[in-house]
Order: sequence, then structure tokens, then C-alpha cells
Amino acid sequence: MDRKAERIGEEYFRCSDRERTAFELGIKLGALFHQFVGAPVSKRNMDVLERAIEKTIESQAFVTRVEVHIDPRGYLESSDSVFHEYTTLSGDMIDAKVELEYKGIKAQGRLRYVEELDYPLMYIESLG
Amino acid sequence: MDRKAERIGEEYFRCSDRERTAFELGIKLGALFHQFVGAPVSKRNMDVLERAIEKTIESQAFVTRVEVHIDPRGYLESSDSVFHEYTTLSGDMIDAKVELEYKGIKAQGRLRYVEELDYPLMYIESLG
Amino acid sequence: MDRKAERIGEEYFRCSDRERTAFELGIKLGALFHQFVGAPVSKRNMDVLERAIEKTIESQAFVTRVEVHIDPRGYLESSDSVFHEYTTLSGDMIDAKVELEYKGIKAQGRLRYVEELDYPLMYIESLG
Amino acid sequence: MDRKAERIGEEYFRCSDRERTAFELGIKLGALFHQFVGAPVSKRNMDVLERAIEKTIESQAFVTRVEVHIDPRGYLESSDSVFHEYTTLSGDMIDAKVELEYKGIKAQGRLRYVEELDYPLMYIESLG
Repeated sequence: MDRKAERIGEEYFRCSDRERTAFELGIKLGALFHQFVGAPVSKRNMDVLERAIEKTIESQAFVTRVEVHIDPRGYLESSDSVFHEYTTLSGDMIDAKVELEYKGIKAQGRLRYVEELDYPLMYIESLG
Repeated sequence: MDRKAERIGEEYFRCSDRERTAFELGIKLGALFHQFVGAPVSKRNMDVLERAIEKTIESQAFVTRVEVHIDPRGYLESSDSVFHEYTTLSGDMIDAKVELEYKGIKAQGRLRYVEELDYPLMYIESLG
Repeated sequence: MDRKAERIGEEYFRCSDRERTAFELGIKLGALFHQFVGAPVSKRNMDVLERAIEKTIESQAFVTRVEVHIDPRGYLESSDSVFHEYTTLSGDMIDAKVELEYKGIKAQGRLRYVEELDYPLMYIESLG
Repeated sequence: MDRKAERIGEEYFRCSDRERTAFELGIKLGALFHQFVGAPVSKRNMDVLERAIEKTIESQAFVTRVEVHIDPRGYLESSDSVFHEYTTLSGDMIDAKVELEYKGIKAQGRLRYVEELDYPLMYIESLG
């Protein structure tokens, strides 16, 4: 890890280290959602897609661990037609935990479908 | 705007309002990058793509204004072959400002190619 | 348009010109779907998103015309909560016509939700 | 595999079976490119990303086999800064073979960077 590049990057930020930590968490969840939503998903590729999303987001700056579960939420079971053997990944199928650490500040973010909102919510589960 | 849904959403967050503001800014920049990178871009569609990215990100929660400039950075000029009339949008072509407001806290984020880092950096230009 | 680059490209193909025309149509519809599904969509940005998809796909090789209509299919009306002012673009909201011409062979492809299949189908409406 | 749904789908097509085979190949290559370009890629996730792309595209209609190799083409070696430990997947890093079979017609498509075109070309390697 190149400390010099990291120091240069820091100079662009007008916020506290905790706020940057929150910002970095947001970037990762936004990236995860918008990179992978729309991907074809079937029973055959669900596991490997989960692992790929994990490793892909883990490769980004400051991320320490990612855990992803895909729940096709009935889309794959609703029909046995050729056209329903697979579906496309939507936000409400994803449960993702992203852990990162910036300057010793640990944070955990989450993307998951929240029933009472009928919406896939991105939120901060812990910070610092 | 439904205050009840917003209040429900808030209960999931374990951070300050300023930290959530930073988090929301990160989500939008991560979304912008990963939704649109890879899109075919040519001189003919550059303007309409800029406007679409702006309006698309502006439609997300808490966003007040988005400004996007695409600079093809020589990719479109480097050749006049049929295969170079268009290229695909990459992160280093994008200069995007995202302004949002959460609970009266205004923030501005930026995605732009930073020469000294040779990298498209996402950062917080102002917060609060 | 650089005829030389086009001729070089042709040498890689092991199929007839009509088959290549069909192939090019498939590329464009696959690109359209997977580039834009997942994009935030609201009443405020629907028009500009339609135009951007059109111009973006029109900028690709051999395409002569693209027409896109987004029908949010009730997603935006189903609730007035803050979280339902926008939704994410899914395949079944898109009705897209792509026209292209390769070596004088005109073709039209379509992506649209087909009720009897409960599925967004990509198909060839005319070729040659 | 539901023959009825497949028969219904067929009725929408105005082309020969060989042309549809070529069309389906185009869809898959367009999907592969536009779904995954932009994904963060590093030495740590390259393998798992290759497998995920393979399994994801293999889960689509009529596909029998997909083989993907990612070559970061110097992007990851060009610097050891924190910002270069990963890069984003671009089309010219991907070498992908897609095999499919429709009504007994076998076809193989390819996406790979072609040096003489300086371009990631999608083409049909064999059909029928």
C-alpha cells in the first residue's frame, strides 16, 4: 500500500475521517448495486455470483470483508418455463454486508430489502 | 415526500446525520460510476448522455443538483476508423459534481480524474 | 466511415452477411439491456433517459435508428413514499426498437415485455 | 426446459433458425460486455470474476459453454500505488468464448481485443 498516493488523495477531502469512512462505505454499496443489478441469475450461478461480488468489492480501497447472499425471492420458482430458469438480479434480492477500515475507523454497511419500506435500503450498521 | 418512510429508514442508521450525509454522497457517486461506465459514447451522444446521467442521479434520494461533463480524453480523436467513431465511457472521462442535502446538511461530492494520482477520484468537496 | 477497418473486421467472421446482421442486432439489444437496467428512474428523468438510451445505442456500429419507451409499469404509482418516487429500470419496463443496416441488409430488432411469456423478449422483427 | 414457452417465443421471430442462432450469440456477447465492464478488478478477484462471468452467461437461454480470460494488460502493473492495486474491467481486457446451440445449430462467438483494429471485437467464429 502506497502511503504517498493515499496522502495525496486525502488532501482533496473536506471532511473528517469518520465522514470519509461513511463516504467510502456509500461508494462501495452504490458500486455493488449498480455494477451487478441486471446480471442474469439462476440456481446454477448464484453461488459463484455471490463470491464474485464479494471478491470484487473486497478489492476496492479500504474494504476488509464483504458477505453477499442472493435470495431470488420467488422469481425463479414462479414458473418453470424456459424463460424463468433464470432471471435478472434486482436490488431486492441482495443482502450484502460491507466492512471497511479507514485510518483505524471500522465501519459496516448493509444493503438489504427492508419489508416495512418495500425497498432495498443501504445503511450504516456501525461506524467507529 | 413521505416523512414516515423517511423516519422509518432513519432508524436503521447507526451514525450521525453528517456521517449519513457523507454516506449518501458516496452511494450516488458509486452509482453514477458503475451504472454508466461501459456505455457507448460518441460525439453524437455525449451531450444527451451527460444530461441523462445528471437527471438520473438527481432522481435519487436527497440529491439537489448534478453536473456532468464527459471528456473523451483523446479516445475519439486517436483514430478515424469505423471502430473509433465511438468508444466506451470510462471513469477517467467523467467529471461529475453531486450536491445533496440531508436534514439541512448540504454536501458536495466530486468524481474526476486527478492527474497526480492518474486515477478518477471520488471525494467530498464540502460538507455542512 | 473507414472501409479498411471494416474490411479487416469482416475477415474474422465465419458466417453470411445476413447472419452477421442478425448478430449485430443481438449485440445492440444485449448492450441496451445490460447497460441501462439498474439505472434509477423517476417521472422526472424518464424522457431524458429514453433519449440517452436511443442516442447511445445509435452511436454503435451499423445502427440507423433506435426508439425507446420506458413504461414504469406501476412501480412509481404503487406508493408515494420517499422511497418510491424513483425505482430502478428493469427489463420489463423497456420497449425498444433497434434498426440497423449492414451491407445493404436492413434489420429491425425489438426488446419488449411479452405478456404471454411474462418476460422481456428480444427478437427480430424483420431482416433483409 | 419448457417447450411451450419456447414455441411461443419462436413465433415472434421473422428470420431463419441460423439467423436466430447468430442473434442469440450477439445478445450474449453484448450482455457480457455491458454487464461486467466497469467492475473493479484486481489480482485477488480476477479468477472469481472470470468464473462468475462464465456461469452468469452460461445461465442464459441456449448457451452451452462460456470461457473467459481476463488480461489486465499492464493496468495493474503500471504502478504500485494504492490506487493501482485494482483497476476497472474494460473491454480490451476480456477474451471470451461463448458456445450455444439453438435447434441443433451450434455456434461459437468471441469477444477479444484485436491488435490490428486496436479494438475489442465481437465476432462469430463458427456457425452451424
